[in-house]
Amino acid sequence: MKIASQSKCFGGEMTVFRHQSDSCEAEMSFSVYLPPQAQSGPVPLLWFLSGLTCNHENAMTKGGFQQHAARDGIALIFPDTSPRGEDVADDEAYDLGVGASFYVNATQEPWKRHFQMYDYIVKDLRAAVQAELPVTDRHGITGHSMGGHGALVIALRNPDLFQSVSVFAPIANPTQSDWGRKQLSAYLGEDESDWADYDASILLDERGWHSDILIDQGTSDQFIELLRPQALSAVIARRRQPAVMRLQARYDHSYFFVSSFAADHVAWHAARLNGAANGEHENMGA
Amino acid sequence: MKIASQSKCFGGEMTVFRHQSDSCEAEMSFSVYLPPQAQSGPVPLLWFLSGLTCNHENAMTKGGFQQHAARDGIALIFPDTSPRGEDVADDEAYDLGVGASFYVNATQEPWKRHFQMYDYIVKDLRAAVQAELPVTDRHGITGHSMGGHGALVIALRNPDLFQSVSVFAPIANPTQSDWGRKQLSAYLGEDESDWADYDASILLDERGWHSDILIDQGTSDQFIELLRPQALSAVIARRRQPAVMRLQARYDHSYFFVSSFAADHVAWHAARLNGAANGEHENMGA
Repeated sequence: MKIASQSKCFGGEMTVFRHQSDSCEAEMSFSVYLPPQAQSGPVPLLWFLSGLTCNHENAMTKGGFQQHAARDGIALIFPDTSPRGEDVADDEAYDLGVGASFYVNATQEPWKRHFQMYDYIVKDLRAAVQAELPVTDRHGITGHSMGGHGALVIALRNPDLFQSVSVFAPIANPTQSDWGRKQLSAYLGEDESDWADYDASILLDERGWHSDILIDQGTSDQFIELLRPQALSAVIARRRQPAVMRLQARYDHSYFFVSSFAADHVAWHAARLNGAANGEHENMGA
Repeated sequence: MKIASQSKCFGGEMTVFRHQSDSCEAEMSFSVYLPPQAQSGPVPLLWFLSGLTCNHENAMTKGGFQQHAARDGIALIFPDTSPRGEDVADDEAYDLGVGASFYVNATQEPWKRHFQMYDYIVKDLRAAVQAELPVTDRHGITGHSMGGHGALVIALRNPDLFQSVSVFAPIANPTQSDWGRKQLSAYLGEDESDWADYDASILLDERGWHSDILIDQGTSDQFIELLRPQALSAVIARRRQPAVMRLQARYDHSYFFVSSFAADHVAWHAARLNGAANGEHENMGA
């Protein structure tokens, strides 16, 4: 892990690292915020996965999470959204290829060599930060849009690795959406039975989640038809899955929406990561 | 004023406008945040002037001011840093021309036709927002770097228009710095006596300020030699000017620094804009 840049922020340190990913066979960038509390010992870690067109910088500069993480003594990690480099496959569309990995392990050409972002997050990057940064093994995960999809999928498939999960306007049901069918077909092939491991609504229906889930979704989100929050809410209700799903009046899909509720999400994770394994959730209905 | 985009943010509205500037003979963009309190009546307005290379978007997306403005019932305005357009003069350097106006009224070719940013802020934009947005005539002004220079200069020359002023890492003494001499020479000509009206340290020494001033400066600021905070602090001490000047340990020049202290600055202005004309300053020494 090489330091690319570092800035003091809310009493802690915001650092951009570069390192080699074995899974993606690429050099990757990621950003880490260590709160002031990390100077006196390891702290829990909250992962934030970003959405389409983003890299490791967007949420770091626009999400406003650091101040809340400094308050609650939580570290933050912002991975990139795909491998990058001259030999990495790409597509002219903004929603396929570089900047648009959907956090899957691709099995199809030309993607499969480098696009192993599920393994990158769960294996490579997790191992690197556990080994080299002052974080405990209590981890939460959140994300926005395609990154909300990634956060839900990675949490639901790895309940032993994550104690808490929340999402902002996630792609909730990609197997039934144009934000999903195109990409899952490209990365995983035409056999739709292979796609189910990357659909949060299907995964939650099959597996449930050991704790509760916080979901924020703006009612004026310009992409809401592609996100399909109704699929996720139906599963939550049918399974009696503990969750708080908030339809936020007149918020859109932007980081103005994300930053408006960043404080709530960091507090949600902090309560579960600093406290007992299955946090009781506070009153967040208002 | 045409609306270019609008997003709900912390319960209020973040809007990008475009309008015609008579002073700059150009169509200009600016951003306004109206807090929830503006729905029930006019609120005070805090101006934020951005630095070199920025436009109306940087502080809007990276400064983290909106949440604090929503808390305190203050509107925010983020002007662009220069005129833009095909016929607007420019220079290949990042610190002269487009994105680098220094908020002066240029008198020299090729700048003087469009680069009238001092008048744009004080006259055109102020008149437009006063006429069309729910803001009172109680205004504060702040800014970062070149925008801190602009905020100090505009406040000190217009004490009747601004009730409060604060700055983040301002260019404090441009007549004695390479961030200043080059630009003042280009925009105003070689007669240095014409430059004094755009040097905050000279202006404060000559005129003082009717209230107190909040200044934050990072000790690890990579541009601190160009900013010359020592000139401003010397004037403050010599004049016994009420002020709080904070040298913040290990902070650099980035928006990670600005956002870390945004809450303090908004609270500082709110206390002075919502309260009496000359606010008593709270304990901000820590």
